[in-house]
Amino acid sequence: MLETAIEAARQVGQVLLEELGRSHDVRSKGLRDIVTEADLMAQDKAIDILRARYPDHDIWAEEAGQTPGGASDYCWIVDPLDGTTNYSRGYPCFSVSIGLSYRGEAILGVVYDPLSDQLFQAQRGQGAYLNDTRIHVSGVERLIDALVGLDWARKQDLRSQMAQVVAEIAPRAGTIRSTGSAALGLCYVAAGWTDVYFHFLLQPWDVAAASVIIQEAGGIVTDLAGSPWHPDSEGCLATNGLIHQAMLRLLIRT
Amino acid sequence: MLETAIEAARQVGQVLLEELGRSHDVRSKGLRDIVTEADLMAQDKAIDILRARYPDHDIWAEEAGQTPGGASDYCWIVDPLDGTTNYSRGYPCFSVSIGLSYRGEAILGVVYDPLSDQLFQAQRGQGAYLNDTRIHVSGVERLIDALVGLDWARKQDLRSQMAQVVAEIAPRAGTIRSTGSAALGLCYVAAGWTDVYFHFLLQPWDVAAASVIIQEAGGIVTDLAGSPWHPDSEGCLATNGLIHQAMLRLLIRT
Repeated sequence: MLETAIEAARQVGQVLLEELGRSHDVRSKGLRDIVTEADLMAQDKAIDILRARYPDHDIWAEEAGQTPGGASDYCWIVDPLDGTTNYSRGYPCFSVSIGLSYRGEAILGVVYDPLSDQLFQAQRGQGAYLNDTRIHVSGVERLIDALVGLDWARKQDLRSQMAQVVAEIAPRAGTIRSTGSAALGLCYVAAGWTDVYFHFLLQPWDVAAASVIIQEAGGIVTDLAGSPWHPDSEGCLATNGLIHQAMLRLLIRT
Repeated sequence: MLETAIEAARQVGQVLLEELGRSHDVRSKGLRDIVTEADLMAQDKAIDILRARYPDHDIWAEEAGQTPGGASDYCWIVDPLDGTTNYSRGYPCFSVSIGLSYRGEAILGVVYDPLSDQLFQAQRGQGAYLNDTRIHVSGVERLIDALVGLDWARKQDLRSQMAQVVAEIAPRAGTIRSTGSAALGLCYVAAGWTDVYFHFLLQPWDVAAASVIIQEAGGIVTDLAGSPWHPDSEGCLATNGLIHQAMLRLLIRT
């Protein structure tokens, strides 16, 4: 199943590269929320590959509106294009995210950045990898030394809440990065490139794959109250583990 | 001189790639400010190339402590590694920035991202290019549609000021990106990938090269009060021109 996920991620990434820079219909799904033809082409490619290999498995994909709860214990959780806003502008940061859950628990994840050809992957119990290299979270222990990744939820009320948290973090942390692809932002924690990533409102397809990768790299993924992350969680906090409590205290207080 | 700048940027980029991932001594220059051996090796390479080709020109480089005001009308303004914090962590975003000023005015700029092999360049009056393709700023007219790039100055008092500005921008803008390399953040405006970039405290070597690239791509670069950017300016605001006034009003009010 990992091989299938990797093959699907690479083929979907190829579709995204081929379509990048061509003009596409961009349709609004709401404030700050768009979908492009490339999302749909990429999703069709992913579903074709997964269905051909595992016709009995459920598939839950961002633009398909399908939901789990089907006949199978296995459910593929797919974001064919994470970072649609970046992609639509040519900003060089977007990814394909393919996770697999078994009876509701994520057990496998692949996140692929086609522009840099960086493929993050993990299976439960088997470690996390970037391409062929084992990866681990960082050993940074203090927030003042930490690189904190975050992205801004679209909803207006969450913008103000996030601004309050950022005002608390900015003087206390090393510095802040925002990529615009939550799946990549999460994988950067797994690779030890950053120490924290959090977001106020993510969808299951943004987090499912990366959550396995972070945990297999030695990190922790919870919701914003500290409970283990689950597909029903709204917010997400991922860290190297060492500064998880400090981040939680700060989030809960603010 | 453009050819020399491009050759130097590519050779310095090669040094950075070769040293990436090797363990380096990292020395603190102050709060949140570090220098690595790779910065110094990269700078030596840049200076060697520029001196060999133009022995009479002045050179002003981040880690060399040289200042302009020498004998020549020409001064090379060099940041051998912009994004040192990212580089020291393996975070895949850093650049080489090489600008040239004539009698104090920046006339030529090259910014090179060695990981993606993206080279931004411009000469005054000759247009701006990404690799061999002419680039232009975006046509985005409204802040609510804009991608706003920013990075966080190191100084503690500027962190709090920035947090106030971010709290004003977050609900009004499309969204926010932070790369950790000011030179790249500026060039992303030139490429039309973002619409705004600003920073409260940049050094001349962060901005000189990119300022030419943005202006030749049709954008505007000023200080945070709206005066044309100059090597003595502290802050920097770069936009596509269309939302410069809206950004200035917001910065001045906050």
